[in-house]
Amino acid sequence: MARTRSARSEERRADILRAALEVIAERGYRGASLGAVAERVGLTQQGLLHYFPTKEALLVAVLEERDQWDTGGRRSSADGWRLELLASLVEYNAMRPGIVQTFSALLGESVTDEHPARPFFTRRYAQVREEMTDVLRAEFGDRLPGGLTPEHAAPLLVAVMDGLQFQWLLDPESVDMAASFQDFVALLGIPDGAGAADGAS
Amino acid sequence: MARTRSARSEERRADILRAALEVIAERGYRGASLGAVAERVGLTQQGLLHYFPTKEALLVAVLEERDQWDTGGRRSSADGWRLELLASLVEYNAMRPGIVQTFSALLGESVTDEHPARPFFTRRYAQVREEMTDVLRAEFGDRLPGGLTPEHAAPLLVAVMDGLQFQWLLDPESVDMAASFQDFVALLGIPDGAGAADGAS
Repeated sequence: MARTRSARSEERRADILRAALEVIAERGYRGASLGAVAERVGLTQQGLLHYFPTKEALLVAVLEERDQWDTGGRRSSADGWRLELLASLVEYNAMRPGIVQTFSALLGESVTDEHPARPFFTRRYAQVREEMTDVLRAEFGDRLPGGLTPEHAAPLLVAVMDGLQFQWLLDPESVDMAASFQDFVALLGIPDGAGAADGAS
Repeated sequence: MARTRSARSEERRADILRAALEVIAERGYRGASLGAVAERVGLTQQGLLHYFPTKEALLVAVLEERDQWDTGGRRSSADGWRLELLASLVEYNAMRPGIVQTFSALLGESVTDEHPARPFFTRRYAQVREEMTDVLRAEFGDRLPGGLTPEHAAPLLVAVMDGLQFQWLLDPESVDMAASFQDFVALLGIPDGAGAADGAS
């Protein structure tokens, strides 16, 4: 009985996250209110609060879920994804402004003191830098063709992705996020399609 | 008489911006309330609203003023600053987390729909990309040593600066903003101290 209830609760939680993602895609960060998400998933707002006590908690859960999907559900192992994936990810992000806007807005808020999303982002960046370092080392050894060590390249890779998102969100006509990211990848000295050598293509 | 009033008003406006900068430095983005700034400058909150109708308007004015100072007050001409200045600016920013936090938090908010700071940031980035392009072209011609054109390098330079700020604000112990920026400058193929050849050193 307890297990059934827990499984049902997990399922409901997943439904809420899917609904939130839909609302975010349609209405952006500001439109993604707890009320709108509750309505979408057929819960009262009170019922939704049982799963996610605040808008920030819900959005952090959505972003965590997105990270899982974006890296193929294998965040714990560097084998789960390769550098090539990043370029595709940037291209993909250019087609989903709602979630990118939500990520960027919440990231902005999180740097203020005692913001509820701050621990998530701090943890996430430490983890992403570490994973990227591992991926780069696995592909290129202790030094990338452009001269940087994996440890030094990792924070720059993350910074470029995030920084380009802000410029693109503010002015999508003027900023080609995917092309700019490719420029950066070329600077690192990484040939086109690195990591695809033994892949499907 | 009208001129006197106007000059006095300008002076008061400058006082407010200085006070706001102090409050930001001491208390960060969240602590920089209109009330705190009014108190610092010896105005009632109502009096302050006469100059700046919202917190966002005040913060945008502070950031505009900072941009003026940071680029030596010569934003309109590429001759007013050089690439070397950027590296010093990143080092300097690492010593003033309050204003960097304010910039980053407001940038985050600005990407949401119809945010009052959105026009400022959109305009600012278009302008900064253009200025950096001009500076890079003046120093390196149509192609940087690392291979990129000035047009392609400019958005990356901005993205790296902004992206590193977020990582640094969240985890200052783990992220060396100035060293990472130097790594990126090296990737562009720019030798140390570029632009200083005819300078003081």
